[in-house]
Amino acid sequence: MRQNLRAAAAVFGFLGVGASPALAEEGMWTFDNFPSERMQEQLGWAPDRAWLDRVMAGTARVPGCSASNVSANGLMLTNHHCVISCVTELATAESDFITYGFGARNRDEERQCPNMSVQVLQNISDVTERINTATLGVAAEGFAHARDAEIARIEAECTDGAIRCEVVTLYQGGRYALHAFKRFNDVRLVFAPEHGMAAFGGDPDNFNFPRYGLDFAFLRVYENGHVAATPGHLTMRFTPLAEEEIVLIAGNPGRTSRLRTTTELAFERDVGLPSQIASLSEYRGRLIAYSALGLDQARIASSALQSVQNSFKGLSGRRQALADAAGFARITAREEDLQQRVRRNRAAQREVGDAWGEIARAQNAYRGMYYPYQYLEARAGERSLLFAWARDLVRGAAERDKPDAERLPRYTDARLAAVVQGLRGDRPAPAEFEELHLAFWLSKMREYLTVDDPVARRVLGSESPEMLAERLSQSRLADPAFRMRLWEGGAAAIAASDDPMIVFVRAWDGDARAVRERYVTEVEGPMARAHERIARARFRAFGLAQYPDATFSPRVSYGQVEGWSEASGRVVPAFTRAGGLYERATGNPPFRVSQRWADARARIDASTIYNVSTSNDVIGGNSGSPLLDREGRVVGAVFDGNIHSLGGEYFYDGDLNRSVTVTSTAIRMALADVYGMSGLLAELEGH
Amino acid sequence: MRQNLRAAAAVFGFLGVGASPALAEEGMWTFDNFPSERMQEQLGWAPDRAWLDRVMAGTARVPGCSASNVSANGLMLTNHHCVISCVTELATAESDFITYGFGARNRDEERQCPNMSVQVLQNISDVTERINTATLGVAAEGFAHARDAEIARIEAECTDGAIRCEVVTLYQGGRYALHAFKRFNDVRLVFAPEHGMAAFGGDPDNFNFPRYGLDFAFLRVYENGHVAATPGHLTMRFTPLAEEEIVLIAGNPGRTSRLRTTTELAFERDVGLPSQIASLSEYRGRLIAYSALGLDQARIASSALQSVQNSFKGLSGRRQALADAAGFARITAREEDLQQRVRRNRAAQREVGDAWGEIARAQNAYRGMYYPYQYLEARAGERSLLFAWARDLVRGAAERDKPDAERLPRYTDARLAAVVQGLRGDRPAPAEFEELHLAFWLSKMREYLTVDDPVARRVLGSESPEMLAERLSQSRLADPAFRMRLWEGGAAAIAASDDPMIVFVRAWDGDARAVRERYVTEVEGPMARAHERIARARFRAFGLAQYPDATFSPRVSYGQVEGWSEASGRVVPAFTRAGGLYERATGNPPFRVSQRWADARARIDASTIYNVSTSNDVIGGNSGSPLLDREGRVVGAVFDGNIHSLGGEYFYDGDLNRSVTVTSTAIRMALADVYGMSGLLAELEGH
Repeated sequence: MRQNLRAAAAVFGFLGVGASPALAEEGMWTFDNFPSERMQEQLGWAPDRAWLDRVMAGTARVPGCSASNVSANGLMLTNHHCVISCVTELATAESDFITYGFGARNRDEERQCPNMSVQVLQNISDVTERINTATLGVAAEGFAHARDAEIARIEAECTDGAIRCEVVTLYQGGRYALHAFKRFNDVRLVFAPEHGMAAFGGDPDNFNFPRYGLDFAFLRVYENGHVAATPGHLTMRFTPLAEEEIVLIAGNPGRTSRLRTTTELAFERDVGLPSQIASLSEYRGRLIAYSALGLDQARIASSALQSVQNSFKGLSGRRQALADAAGFARITAREEDLQQRVRRNRAAQREVGDAWGEIARAQNAYRGMYYPYQYLEARAGERSLLFAWARDLVRGAAERDKPDAERLPRYTDARLAAVVQGLRGDRPAPAEFEELHLAFWLSKMREYLTVDDPVARRVLGSESPEMLAERLSQSRLADPAFRMRLWEGGAAAIAASDDPMIVFVRAWDGDARAVRERYVTEVEGPMARAHERIARARFRAFGLAQYPDATFSPRVSYGQVEGWSEASGRVVPAFTRAGGLYERATGNPPFRVSQRWADARARIDASTIYNVSTSNDVIGGNSGSPLLDREGRVVGAVFDGNIHSLGGEYFYDGDLNRSVTVTSTAIRMALADVYGMSGLLAELEGH
Repeated sequence: MRQNLRAAAAVFGFLGVGASPALAEEGMWTFDNFPSERMQEQLGWAPDRAWLDRVMAGTARVPGCSASNVSANGLMLTNHHCVISCVTELATAESDFITYGFGARNRDEERQCPNMSVQVLQNISDVTERINTATLGVAAEGFAHARDAEIARIEAECTDGAIRCEVVTLYQGGRYALHAFKRFNDVRLVFAPEHGMAAFGGDPDNFNFPRYGLDFAFLRVYENGHVAATPGHLTMRFTPLAEEEIVLIAGNPGRTSRLRTTTELAFERDVGLPSQIASLSEYRGRLIAYSALGLDQARIASSALQSVQNSFKGLSGRRQALADAAGFARITAREEDLQQRVRRNRAAQREVGDAWGEIARAQNAYRGMYYPYQYLEARAGERSLLFAWARDLVRGAAERDKPDAERLPRYTDARLAAVVQGLRGDRPAPAEFEELHLAFWLSKMREYLTVDDPVARRVLGSESPEMLAERLSQSRLADPAFRMRLWEGGAAAIAASDDPMIVFVRAWDGDARAVRERYVTEVEGPMARAHERIARARFRAFGLAQYPDATFSPRVSYGQVEGWSEASGRVVPAFTRAGGLYERATGNPPFRVSQRWADARARIDASTIYNVSTSNDVIGGNSGSPLLDREGRVVGAVFDGNIHSLGGEYFYDGDLNRSVTVTSTAIRMALADVYGMSGLLAELEGH
C-alpha cells in the first residue's frame, strides 16, 4: 500500500526540491508514508517497515481516543479519560467507580461498557482514483454528494461482518485511503484508577506540566462472549525511560487544520471559536452548578464536565494561537509560499484555478448559515442522548428506505451497524441530566437564531426552552428495548409514535435537513473541490515530504524524551517522579491523593518516573496512544499535550510543543504497590 | 463654564478646518459644549442655553444609570433594570416584588432602597490647568499618582455636605472638569412593574427591536426624612410622539472607546474581551442553574442574572464589531488621519512625541499583568458583597491613617462618604448566593493565574475554591452593625478581627496592592500621559467640534424618531404599539404578560405607542435617561439600544445605531389602565 501512494504522487512533477514543509520532529504521518530517511538523518535511527506494520497491528482506535493491545488475551491500554463515560455509566451510588476506581480481580468481574468499541486497523488501500473518477466534471454544488455516494459504494463493497471499512480523507482530499478495521463491540472494563488520581490536578493542571496524572485504564476485547485472541499484541517495557531517548507515538490524532486556508482560519478565529468558547463556558457553568448539587449529580456529570472543561481549554488555546499576530503571520506565509509556487508553474496554475477564491466564497456562504447549521444540525441536542437516539431513529427509518448511495452518510449500509450499536447499548440517560443538556441547547438555539426566526419558532412552539426540555426529558427512549422496537418498526413505527422526543424531532427534521443540504451544496462541496486542487498543487510542490492533516485515522509521530524552556527562561524538565505527587497534594480536590495512595506512600519509590514530556507532534484523539521505544515496546500511555501544543491545531513549534505521557513505570508501581493488581500485572509481564 | 472650555481650546491653533470627526447625529456631548450650530444645520432646530441648563438640572445620576426628576416632590423616573437590585433586596418570599411588582399607594408605603443614591449635577468647572500644573514634568510612572493627588485636593476643597464633587476626565485627559453633584442618599422605591413586564422578551429580546419592554420605575428622593423639594424638575408629556420628531437624550453614558488607540483596541479584541466573555458565560451558566433551583433562588439571582446576560450580549457585540475587518479598518483610518495631521505640524509633532509608541509599550506591560490585575484587584471577589465590604474595611482602615493625597483614590476624604454608605446599607447577602460568587471568582483566579502562581497559592492556601468560598460565605459581615463597628474601630479592629472574610482579605491585600501599583505606574500612568498629548493634538486638529468619550458623566445627544433598514432590506419601523405586546406573548417566560396585563387587555388602546426607536447616540449608563422633546418635556425613559448600537463603543453608525425608549404614553397607560396608580399619575400630570 505504501507503493500505491508513492506511485500516485509520482505522476505529478515536483515544483520544488527538498523544500519539505515539515520541520524538526513535526508530523503525524500515515503508516504508509513514514519519513524514515528524514528521521534517520535527524535522530540517527528510524523504524523499518516491519516495525511499522507490527505497531499498526498492535494499536487501536476507541471512541475519540487511541489504545494499544498489550497482551495476547485482548488487553488494551488506554487513558482513564477515554473510558470515563463507561466508568460513569457503570457506576451507581452504591458502587461509585468514579470516586473509588474499578479493578476486576478476574475475568468474571470485568464489566461490559455500554457503548464502547475497539477498532484495529487491518489494511490500507488507496482509492483516490475511484473517488476522482466519480467526481470528475461534477459541479461544486453536487461535488460532496457524488463523492459521498462513491464512498458509500466503496465502503459497502469492503465491509463484511466484523471488518468495517472506512474511506479516510487525507491531504484535504488530495488522497482517499480505504481503511479496513476489525471492530470489537464487546469491550469490558478491566481496571480504572480513582478519577481523582487519573485526573490529579484536574482542570487547573490540564495541559500543564510538570504533571502527575495517573490517566490510564485497561479494557479487554471479547468476541462471541469469549476473550478475543490477539496474537499481534505489543509488549510493555517497565524499565525507566532515559533523557533524550527516541520515542514514537502511534494513535489517532483527531483533527488538525494545518492545510486549511487563511480565510477558513480567519473565520474560525473571528466567528467559530469565539461562539463555541462562549457557549462551552456557559455549559460548563451549568454543569459545575449541577455537579455541586450532590454526590449523585457529581458522579453523573463527571464525564461531561471533564470533557467540556478540556474542550474549553483546548479551544481557548487555539483561539489564542490564531489571535496571535505572529502565529497568524506564519499561516499566511505558508499559504503565500504555496501560491507563489503555483504561480510559477503553468500546469499547476491551470489546475488550481481560483481555488482560494472559491474557498473564500464558500466561507462567506457558511458565515450566513453558521448558527442554523450548528444549532439545528451539527450540534443539535448537544449532549442529550435522548435527542441523538430520536434523530437516529427518525432519520434511520427514512434513510433505510432509500438506495444506499442516496442516503445521508451516517446511514449507509457500511455504517448502519454502528448506529444500531448506539441504539442498543444500555446507557443511562437520567432525566434531570437530559433536561440540563436540552434546556441549554434550546436556549442557545433561540439566542443565536433569534426569537423571530421561523424555524426557531417551529422548534420551540410556544414553550420556553426550559419547559420543553423538561417535557422531552420524559421520553421513553431511555429504554433500549423501546428504542429497538421503534428501529425495527421502521418508518411506520416512527410515524405512529407519540413519544414526545420522537414527535419533537419529526416535527422539524425537514428544516434541519434543509440547512444541512444547503451546507453540503454551498459550503462542503465547493470547499472539498477546491481543496482537492490545492492538494494536487501541494503534491507538485512537496511530493510526499509532507503529512496530511489529522483526521482521526492511524498515524505515527516521532520524537525524543525532552522538556522545554519557556520564553521566561524557566526550564521544564522532561520527567516528574512519584515523590512530586505527594508534594503537590494539598489534601483538597483536585489535588488530593486517594486513601489508597496515601496508605501506599511508604511502599512507593519516590524516584519512580511518573509522567514524561516528549517532543512528538500529537493532538486530541492521540489520548491513550502507546508511547513506544525503538524496540516497539510500550513505555506509557499518552494522555495530553502541554499548553503550547494547543496551537498544534495550526502549526508545530519544535521548541515548545510537547506531548505528555503516563509512564509504564508509574503504571507498574500503581498496579503492584497501590492496587495489588498482581494478576493484571502478570498478564502484562507475559507470565 | 462653557466659555472656560472654549477659551482653553483656543490656545491651540487649529490644524484643519471644518474637518469635524463627528458625523450625522453622532455624539454624546457635554452640557458645556453642545453643538447647537451643527444640530440647527442638520435638523433645523437646536436647544438654547436655557434649555440645556434646565435639562441638566432636571436630570440625575443613579448607580450605573440615569434618571429624570419629574415632579416638584422629588419623583424620579428611571428604568426598572436600574432599580432591580433595590427591588430584589426589598423582596422576600412573602412579598415578591420581582414577580408581582411594587406600587406605593401613599408616601408611607414608599420603601427605602438599601444602597441607592441619586446625584443631580449642580455645576461644572474646568480644572485642566490645575491638573496639568500638578503633573508638569512628572515621569510616566509617577504620572497617575501626581494626577490623583491633585484630584483628591480639588475634590476635597469642593465637597461639602450633600454637595459631592468629582473630577471627570474628558477627552482621554485632554480636559478635566470638576462636577459638583447634589447627592441624595435616602432614596425610596415608589413604583416598579412586574419584572416579567419590565423585561418582557428577556434576554432573547435584549438589544432587539421591535420591542415591548415596560422598563420604567419611579423613585423618590428624601432629605432629612422628608420628601425633597425639587422645584427645578422637568415635566412629562403624555401625547404621542411623531415620526421624525426631534428628540434629545440627557443622561450619563458609561463608557465608550472611540478615542482609544488601535493598539489598545487590538488588545481588547484579542485578549480582554475574549477572556471576559468566556468568564461571563460560565458565570451566567452557574447563575441560570442556581435560579432553576427554586423560586427563592430565582428571586435572589434575578438582578445578577439580568446584569450578566446584558453584559454578555454587550461584550459579544463589541467583540464582533472589533473582529469585523471593516469595523477595525475604520478605527485604524481614524488614527492614521490624526497621525498624518500631527506629522504635518511641527509643534504638534514635538508635543505628541512618541505617544502612540508609549501606549503600545504600556499595553504590552498590561498584557503581562492582565490576569493578576483583573483577578486580584479589578474584579476581585466578583459580585460578592461580603468581599467588597471586607476590602473596604481593610483598605479603608489603612488608608484613613494616611494624608489625603497619598490614599488610594477610593478612600480620599471627598469619596469616603460613599464608601460608608455602602457599608451601612442593609443589603441582604444570602450565604448560598455569596458562596456562588466567591467559588466562581476563586476558581477563575486559579485558572488564569495557574496553580503554581505564588499569590494564587497564598489566596487559596490548601483549600479548594469551593471549600474556601463556603467558609468565607459564613462571614459576620452580612450584619451592617458588625460592619460599622469594624469601620469605627479602624486599623486596630481590623488587625484584631477573626472574621473569616476579614482574615482572608487582610492576608493577601499586600499582593493585590502590589499588582495595583504595578498597573498604576506601568500602565495607567504612561497611558494617561501619552493620551493627554494625543488629546492636545486632537484639539489642534478639530477644536471643539468633537465630543469626549463617555465617562459616566452628564451628556446630551440629539436625534430623531426613526427606525432603520437592515442590510437584508428588512425595514424596522420606529414604533411598537400595545397591541403588539399581546401578539408577541407566547404565554411562557420570558414572553408572558402578567395577570394584571392579561386582565387589562380590554381596557387598553392597542394603538398606544409602547416603545420607540430614535437615532440618538447612546450607550450603557444612559439607561433611565429622559427622552426629551423640543420643549424639554420627558416623553419616555431610554432603556436600551438596538443590536447595532453595541459597536457604538467604538463608532457611531448613523444608518443603523438606534436607542430604544419606553414611551410616556406606555407609562401613562400602565399607571392608569393596568395598575390603577392614580395618585402617582396625578403627581406626574402636575395636579
